[in-house]
Amino acid sequence: MSERIQDPIARLSVLLARLPGVGEKTAQRLAFHILESPKEYARELSQALLALEHDVRLCSRCCNLTAQDPCAMCRDPQRDGRLLCVVETVPDLLAIERTREFRGRYHVLHGALSPLDGIGPDRLKIKELLARLHDDGAAAGPGDAARAPSEPARVPIEEIILATDPTVEGEATALYLARLLKPLGLKLTRIAQGVPMGGDLEYADQVTLARALTGRREL
Amino acid sequence: MSERIQDPIARLSVLLARLPGVGEKTAQRLAFHILESPKEYARELSQALLALEHDVRLCSRCCNLTAQDPCAMCRDPQRDGRLLCVVETVPDLLAIERTREFRGRYHVLHGALSPLDGIGPDRLKIKELLARLHDDGAAAGPGDAARAPSEPARVPIEEIILATDPTVEGEATALYLARLLKPLGLKLTRIAQGVPMGGDLEYADQVTLARALTGRREL
Repeated sequence: MSERIQDPIARLSVLLARLPGVGEKTAQRLAFHILESPKEYARELSQALLALEHDVRLCSRCCNLTAQDPCAMCRDPQRDGRLLCVVETVPDLLAIERTREFRGRYHVLHGALSPLDGIGPDRLKIKELLARLHDDGAAAGPGDAARAPSEPARVPIEEIILATDPTVEGEATALYLARLLKPLGLKLTRIAQGVPMGGDLEYADQVTLARALTGRREL
Repeated sequence: MSERIQDPIARLSVLLARLPGVGEKTAQRLAFHILESPKEYARELSQALLALEHDVRLCSRCCNLTAQDPCAMCRDPQRDGRLLCVVETVPDLLAIERTREFRGRYHVLHGALSPLDGIGPDRLKIKELLARLHDDGAAAGPGDAARAPSEPARVPIEEIILATDPTVEGEATALYLARLLKPLGLKLTRIAQGVPMGGDLEYADQVTLARALTGRREL
């Protein structure tokens, strides 16, 4: 914001209106709600916003956003280090966590390939993924002695699940990674695509339905 | 919030989810949006939240929320001091301002009578309204010499527009004020009630339609 708006409520409203899905009227309503809430609320929210800058960093192993490096997921000895799920963004990671179906580890690319937007492989955390595969592959060897005692033992990765979005960019990214990782001799999988649960075949788009057919499984 | 959540993103999400109309998922989406915005955004938003507590107070004349007392509307010499519009809340005041139809002054009650919720006349800014009517009525007299030179001349209020909401509470408040103010010999008016612009008579509720009929105007 270039010039500062003098009125504090208007200033807060203008800032809130920059959030996605928040229009001018909603922003004003939120500002008044905050104003009428107990004073601690505005204070805590203010602190939480500042904490983002100071406390959030990338996990040096999986590129997840975290307050502590390595992140909780990389530290957790209960998680299966043989499985690595590659996602585009941290919200994608959190969505997979909510399913409670996956107990392996993650790697966050922080985007998807999109040549039209100038996003090539170097803009994604692919270098970090390769370095990690190299490290983990070598972990069983003599390098293992160097790891901190608090860190769980690194087991070699056996399977990489490509869980990028089912979009043009996500598909391109998965294909690119598949080609890149194939020579490493790991098992490479892609999340299933098909009709969503609760959906109606009549309203499913052609591409989704075609994928559901080709991806059919024996019962 | 009693215990502090350690993860900065989760903490911000939990706080954002307390805003009206913001669910858990939206809160998380907003938190990540803020995280991905330029750092100044989180900083400015943080400051704007703190400024609420320090800079926002009630205007001593009209009870509007303001950074400077008296508020811009009470200071503005262009506004017609003979007209006083009584509203429930500051957002209501702003809604009327947006119409650009009203150039008088305001008085904000900060609520409406609601005996069931324990909100009686003493909880609203009615005392302040009466004091103001008294002051402004006497302003033409010797008390006028005492006012600061920067303040616009106070002219006696001639009409009070009761612009409380068209709800049970708003109506009750308007009736209460009408009875209270009647003896002062001022013109008292209530905003018109009827079918909203762009509405369809077929779908108007009975009460609104009945009000539209009784409030009909000659063309």
